[in-house]
Amino acid sequence: MRMYDIIKKKRDGYELTKEEINFFVEGYSKGEIPDYQASALVMAIFLKKMTKKETVYLTEAMMHSGDVIDLSKIEGIKVDKHSTGGVGDKTTITLAPLVASCGAPVAKMSGRGLGHTGGTLDKLESIPGLSIEMDQDKFIDNVNNHKIAVCGQTASIVPADKKLYALRDVTATVDNISLIASSIMSKKLASGADAIVLDVKTGSGAFMKELEDSFALAKEMVDIGNGMNRETIGVVTDMDQPLGFAVGNALEVKEAIETLKGNGPKDFTELCLNLGAYMLMLAKIASSYEEGRKMLEESISSGKALDKLREFIEIQGGNKDVVDNYDLLPKATNVIEVKSPRKGYVSKIEAETVGLSAMMLGAGRETKEDKLDLGAGIVLNKKVGDFVEEGEILAHMYVNDTTKLESAKERLLSAYTISDEKPVERKLIYGIVTKDGIKRF
Amino acid sequence: MRMYDIIKKKRDGYELTKEEINFFVEGYSKGEIPDYQASALVMAIFLKKMTKKETVYLTEAMMHSGDVIDLSKIEGIKVDKHSTGGVGDKTTITLAPLVASCGAPVAKMSGRGLGHTGGTLDKLESIPGLSIEMDQDKFIDNVNNHKIAVCGQTASIVPADKKLYALRDVTATVDNISLIASSIMSKKLASGADAIVLDVKTGSGAFMKELEDSFALAKEMVDIGNGMNRETIGVVTDMDQPLGFAVGNALEVKEAIETLKGNGPKDFTELCLNLGAYMLMLAKIASSYEEGRKMLEESISSGKALDKLREFIEIQGGNKDVVDNYDLLPKATNVIEVKSPRKGYVSKIEAETVGLSAMMLGAGRETKEDKLDLGAGIVLNKKVGDFVEEGEILAHMYVNDTTKLESAKERLLSAYTISDEKPVERKLIYGIVTKDGIKRF
Repeated sequence: MRMYDIIKKKRDGYELTKEEINFFVEGYSKGEIPDYQASALVMAIFLKKMTKKETVYLTEAMMHSGDVIDLSKIEGIKVDKHSTGGVGDKTTITLAPLVASCGAPVAKMSGRGLGHTGGTLDKLESIPGLSIEMDQDKFIDNVNNHKIAVCGQTASIVPADKKLYALRDVTATVDNISLIASSIMSKKLASGADAIVLDVKTGSGAFMKELEDSFALAKEMVDIGNGMNRETIGVVTDMDQPLGFAVGNALEVKEAIETLKGNGPKDFTELCLNLGAYMLMLAKIASSYEEGRKMLEESISSGKALDKLREFIEIQGGNKDVVDNYDLLPKATNVIEVKSPRKGYVSKIEAETVGLSAMMLGAGRETKEDKLDLGAGIVLNKKVGDFVEEGEILAHMYVNDTTKLESAKERLLSAYTISDEKPVERKLIYGIVTKDGIKRF
Repeated sequence: MRMYDIIKKKRDGYELTKEEINFFVEGYSKGEIPDYQASALVMAIFLKKMTKKETVYLTEAMMHSGDVIDLSKIEGIKVDKHSTGGVGDKTTITLAPLVASCGAPVAKMSGRGLGHTGGTLDKLESIPGLSIEMDQDKFIDNVNNHKIAVCGQTASIVPADKKLYALRDVTATVDNISLIASSIMSKKLASGADAIVLDVKTGSGAFMKELEDSFALAKEMVDIGNGMNRETIGVVTDMDQPLGFAVGNALEVKEAIETLKGNGPKDFTELCLNLGAYMLMLAKIASSYEEGRKMLEESISSGKALDKLREFIEIQGGNKDVVDNYDLLPKATNVIEVKSPRKGYVSKIEAETVGLSAMMLGAGRETKEDKLDLGAGIVLNKKVGDFVEEGEILAHMYVNDTTKLESAKERLLSAYTISDEKPVERKLIYGIVTKDGIKRF
């Protein structure tokens, strides 16, 4: 088999075989196939597309390029959740203890963030003492004894994806549904999940800006998961404005805890209940979406979910008092008001722009080497649909290093559109994708 | 300007600007743009195509990536000829002295061959003593004093093409008309020609197998040449069977000399007269194709052309006695008859297969390091349309190293198709392409 022939075949629009895809992924991982051949193939894939079959083969090959975690020693059906990412997305911090409190085993491997704000791991590390370092035995023990553990993704998970993603990133070949889907799914599958709930974001702050693209990506991933015998559901959700009010690591942790207390933002609470209900269904703990949702609501109102969070923080070495005393979280010395320049309805808050503003305050990393300021960020006061008077507060900025404060403030204001007319309300949940197809709401 | 954005733009089907193409060619030549970005761009170009404008920009950028030869010290209009290559193509050896003998200055830079047989330089070096090494001053002096000089292409001509071609060769991106055209034309233009006659081959033994592709390539190159103010004509000619009878370096030299004596194969003689007449037209030595052709015919019959060949061999250090004594050429110790397995009409001789057979005998290089056997090769006895009896000789093989003789013989026989019915005669010249458009014959 020759890489040249594989490139030529895809270039001419033919379907690659499982053997050809394996040859590429193995050879590229091992450094036997040079970058320049890989990038030619990836551009051909980008422009000629991949079939469902090819995408499943690619996912499988990537999944097996490194360690595949064996979670079989954990009792019960392990349901993983993955979000395609957005601004203000602190879902895991609320959702993990919430579904664990209902009896679903949560064995979660998370990543760090490169972008507007930190990833789940960065956010969790805002909690004093909490560590995400643990060996696999400890990880499995924690899930068996406490139904919950969160750790960092090891470097040995899907090394092929790391290498290929870095190449795609510099050759304008990232935005291809098959390549995105196989990149995400190979990591989920290698992490050992039995079933997967995917939160596929749509809108200006999402990777996929257009609703149809988001459904297509959800469908692609659901088909891959089910094609590999892991029950997979995709939920397409809004990311046209930031999720909840808080953007920034400790600020988001606080909001996540408030949500477990029943005081969360309406949109974020709804998202957690929705995704959580599907997780409980896939874990065979609830027999229907409605039942799952009810269990989650009861767990919040009874305080069971909050107790589970305390337990989780404690077993991972953190200070559980944080739950009742937010002063223990990293803080910002300066809180700046950002006021509306005019009166009218908030008709748009560009999520990505808010994220970039938060990054300028120190909440996110521009390069891998950047150190996060876990206390920095933004808390929105107004969201899309709200009415504001001129000079009314739109948001507060939390900042320690004020070097870029002025440009961050300007940036934040540019994210807002204030109009005379009340905007049409956007949905939070656009639909779900299961192995039976797409159901739109 | 960023290479990433250039790749993305072409990927999305937009036309690149002159500045963007220059940025790529310069950056890639200098090693500032890595191979993996270049190959992604080239695959995007392959699949999304280039406009005429982009192709001209690419040609210009490549042409200026190295030395541009200044032939202005040579009097007269310098007309260059380029062939897209085939099997048994010894045209330059006949054509250069032929048109020079009519007064056209021939300042020819040629290449070596990688493939079935050697290139023009290899063939010329069959002549004892003949050298193609000379400095630029000597080259120009020879053309001014003798109307003819042939030398090797220096490495400093279009280095960008060398680098890019090597990359295309391993990434399945060779067969794209814009890329082929700009590769050929950048070298012709950098070699300093004022006007160019292109011999674009078509058929099974040509780079372009389909007639329409050959016309398209001819048109692309003619448009580039004229777009850069060099009068350019493309002639689309047959390469479905080998040209003439001889395939192999010294064997072809002999045939080229015979042609200057008026005893050449019909097809090869016709091709030389045709291309030569256009060269004389572009050099403003003949006022019409017919006049040019007549001048060439007279030069052959008067012996003027043969004298020019003797003169050329002599000034390049060779033994001109070769012209009258072929025993001075490299020879093969074994001459093997290849006989027809059946009676019938020769309806097909796959040129490429004949070339591969000759290569197995030592006439061509498989890798750059291979040493040629200048005496080895094949001389056909029968060509398409001829009738043969069973056991009649189809060809002679000339060989010194007989290691691969049997498989070469088998290969040669597989090139022939013998049928009961007389095949439809193929044209030799399919048409010409000028700045006014395509004229088919």
